[in-house]
Amino acid sequence: MAAADSPVRLVIHGASGRMGQALVRLCAEAPALRLVAAVAGSEAPHIAGVPGFAAGELASLPAFEACIDFSLPAGFDRVLDRCLAQGAAFVSGTTGLDSHQLARLDEAAARIPVLWAANFSLGVAVLQDLVRRAAAALPQWHRDIVETHHVHKKDAPSGTALALGESIVEGGGAAPHYASLRAGDIVGEHLVQFTGAGERIELIHRATHRDIFARGALHCASALAHRAPGRYRVIDLLSGMTGRGA
Amino acid sequence: MAAADSPVRLVIHGASGRMGQALVRLCAEAPALRLVAAVAGSEAPHIAGVPGFAAGELASLPAFEACIDFSLPAGFDRVLDRCLAQGAAFVSGTTGLDSHQLARLDEAAARIPVLWAANFSLGVAVLQDLVRRAAAALPQWHRDIVETHHVHKKDAPSGTALALGESIVEGGGAAPHYASLRAGDIVGEHLVQFTGAGERIELIHRATHRDIFARGALHCASALAHRAPGRYRVIDLLSGMTGRGA
Amino acid sequence: MAAADSPVRLVIHGASGRMGQALVRLCAEAPALRLVAAVAGSEAPHIAGVPGFAAGELASLPAFEACIDFSLPAGFDRVLDRCLAQGAAFVSGTTGLDSHQLARLDEAAARIPVLWAANFSLGVAVLQDLVRRAAAALPQWHRDIVETHHVHKKDAPSGTALALGESIVEGGGAAPHYASLRAGDIVGEHLVQFTGAGERIELIHRATHRDIFARGALHCASALAHRAPGRYRVIDLLSGMTGRGA
Amino acid sequence: MAAADSPVRLVIHGASGRMGQALVRLCAEAPALRLVAAVAGSEAPHIAGVPGFAAGELASLPAFEACIDFSLPAGFDRVLDRCLAQGAAFVSGTTGLDSHQLARLDEAAARIPVLWAANFSLGVAVLQDLVRRAAAALPQWHRDIVETHHVHKKDAPSGTALALGESIVEGGGAAPHYASLRAGDIVGEHLVQFTGAGERIELIHRATHRDIFARGALHCASALAHRAPGRYRVIDLLSGMTGRGA
Repeated sequence: MAAADSPVRLVIHGASGRMGQALVRLCAEAPALRLVAAVAGSEAPHIAGVPGFAAGELASLPAFEACIDFSLPAGFDRVLDRCLAQGAAFVSGTTGLDSHQLARLDEAAARIPVLWAANFSLGVAVLQDLVRRAAAALPQWHRDIVETHHVHKKDAPSGTALALGESIVEGGGAAPHYASLRAGDIVGEHLVQFTGAGERIELIHRATHRDIFARGALHCASALAHRAPGRYRVIDLLSGMTGRGA
Repeated sequence: MAAADSPVRLVIHGASGRMGQALVRLCAEAPALRLVAAVAGSEAPHIAGVPGFAAGELASLPAFEACIDFSLPAGFDRVLDRCLAQGAAFVSGTTGLDSHQLARLDEAAARIPVLWAANFSLGVAVLQDLVRRAAAALPQWHRDIVETHHVHKKDAPSGTALALGESIVEGGGAAPHYASLRAGDIVGEHLVQFTGAGERIELIHRATHRDIFARGALHCASALAHRAPGRYRVIDLLSGMTGRGA
Repeated sequence: MAAADSPVRLVIHGASGRMGQALVRLCAEAPALRLVAAVAGSEAPHIAGVPGFAAGELASLPAFEACIDFSLPAGFDRVLDRCLAQGAAFVSGTTGLDSHQLARLDEAAARIPVLWAANFSLGVAVLQDLVRRAAAALPQWHRDIVETHHVHKKDAPSGTALALGESIVEGGGAAPHYASLRAGDIVGEHLVQFTGAGERIELIHRATHRDIFARGALHCASALAHRAPGRYRVIDLLSGMTGRGA
Repeated sequence: MAAADSPVRLVIHGASGRMGQALVRLCAEAPALRLVAAVAGSEAPHIAGVPGFAAGELASLPAFEACIDFSLPAGFDRVLDRCLAQGAAFVSGTTGLDSHQLARLDEAAARIPVLWAANFSLGVAVLQDLVRRAAAALPQWHRDIVETHHVHKKDAPSGTALALGESIVEGGGAAPHYASLRAGDIVGEHLVQFTGAGERIELIHRATHRDIFARGALHCASALAHRAPGRYRVIDLLSGMTGRGA
């Protein structure tokens, strides 16, 4: 394993997708990471300066300390096996996993550090933590969640809005009321409002660029590489947030 | 001492000031509290249904479990002595205390529960907690505090804005930049903004009615009455906020 | 008729209702107005320093230049007749008028200045004007209206939100999407958002005190008293807003 | 001259700068425009499918109905001469013009349609119009302008904030108070707040992508191509905004 002050050797699995491309591009700006392999579906991707591998060639990968997986459920088991074999940290945002695959995340966490998340924005992770805390402190206040996204977003409320709602319920008190707006090319905004008598608190996250998701995943990969085995959340990898608070 | 499910017997010290009058009025709506004495300066206040006492008559007060003090430094030592003698919780928002009086708050906390605060809004207390936590999680993000108050407010930034700034520094990372707006009859608004690349978090408190300060102090008195001796903050008396978090 | 620089002599019809009481109270602070009569239902109201009349005593009213009517449809025709007889300006916020009564407003406008409005907030009147203009300028942009009110408000969207939506349609382009929040004791907030590609405009009105409705009606009464006969809107009585713009 | 329903033949002068490149790229998406020449400094730019010309080759340009100029003062007089010779609309965002050059804009407007602007965002143009109108309607209300930009922006308040302030003064009433925030990579936000007693209006523009400036300039070029000679502002070229309003 590399020393803690060497760059973390990273594999990106699913390198040809929209998120994969952003990961490869932004990895070049992250001194804490060194991209040692980009893996994509049926054919090895051709990226200047980055060794490319097809999904069938995982056995040939060089040594690595972390892997970011944004691909499809079909390839999930193989890349997780490869991380277990390597003792590498596993960061995944692959959606559509079946119950068996979800269970494998927990099993793997006994041997390697594992993080699966629906949203890798660091700001959203912090907002979720704050929302749970505010809900715990103010159980009597009304709660509303308003989310705004571009017109191409089909589902409403957004997955992030629902996750924020779960944080509210986890904190305590009544469940929130949701409202959804679809307009223009807005990347994503979430307002969580707690209203009492004569005062209120508004907690807002605004995303203005999609790169935040790739940047967040890269942050997680570098922060997770030298952690103990276990299941992690994005918030756990932010400085000063070592526990769950109260 | 009254049983935990009886109303807390309360003394309001400084009952004729603006805050004192709001405390007396709103106490009538708080089933957890029973106002047993209203104390004011040189002359006992005449309030329908409430026993009134002059400041010089503290020895004659009936038994009580909690006292809220919003008066002047001159009467501070005597009312604190009376609470110590009674073993009652002491809640104070009196400003202008000297260093000796501030030290007495800590000494008293060895024997009774004590809370002194500059701002009794429950929402501001929660915001302060969230701000410290966000600052700890996002040490690299820029921080800005914008506060807006009515045109009669002279000091800028507001004391609450400065307290929020201290929470940021306590959390970690750079100190905030402040901006102050003075307009109309706005009761008080505070925005704390954390800005990263491509995303940001806005944490806002809006006060729309001054009663929130009296209501917050009454909440503190009822919550503090049966606590162990010690020094408390408003945030400590909100449900689910038993500790300082991470 | 009084000279233009004397205070306008005002009658308040419906003086014992919630709005009527606010009108009487705030009229005392308006040097441009002099309250000469307060009229209420079956019995003349007793207000210090103000001549009171029962609804059946309209014939006994002293001379006046303006009347504000916040009462019930049953008394509407009589008070309008009295204004016509007096040649006085008629300002009304009475709701539930039937089609015949609505038609009488237009007829009366041939002889006296007439203003009926659902919302007398000056800020809402301005917002409505701005919204129509923005809609005309940006016909391709998405439009959303979010309104937030206290939990006791039953109807949704609010009447003001619907009026703002009509201003959008009047301006041009697509109709808006509405969202409604009900929380705490929020007096009333309206956000109208226009979203294009890469940019957006948010137009917001926040009411923090109900007095704005009475203050707006008093402003209208003093501004209308010496105008030519005709049908007016609140926006027409704001300085610098003599026309409809483009 | 092309018929009104043919695409407007466009020349981009200053095609190799940051704005020029955005103009060329986005022009390809604008069916109302056909790029017939891209002109850049000392050497003709090489852009796939677009005829390139050096600044010294203006005499060789093909026929065109509109020109967008984002270059330097040194080349300004020649490109304006070329537009006058061609009878083409002239749209310019070139900064640093001297007083003689500014005067030439007015002279040229006698013969061709001319538009010079510091900010080509359509949303900002509309905001400026709304702000002037709100200021005229509410001369007694307090006015505040808060602008937020990325940390690399040196000047404060922003030029757009100052222009909004001029619109306020033009509308009437007191001049605004300014506050400036510099944080992260925020493209640009402007809040203009009007505050009365018990209510307020917030008018906000948020830019989330720099392309809005190029898109706005392209809109102006296509809208200006068949207008009468004269001096125009961005707002004049938005549908439904044929005049200045009240």
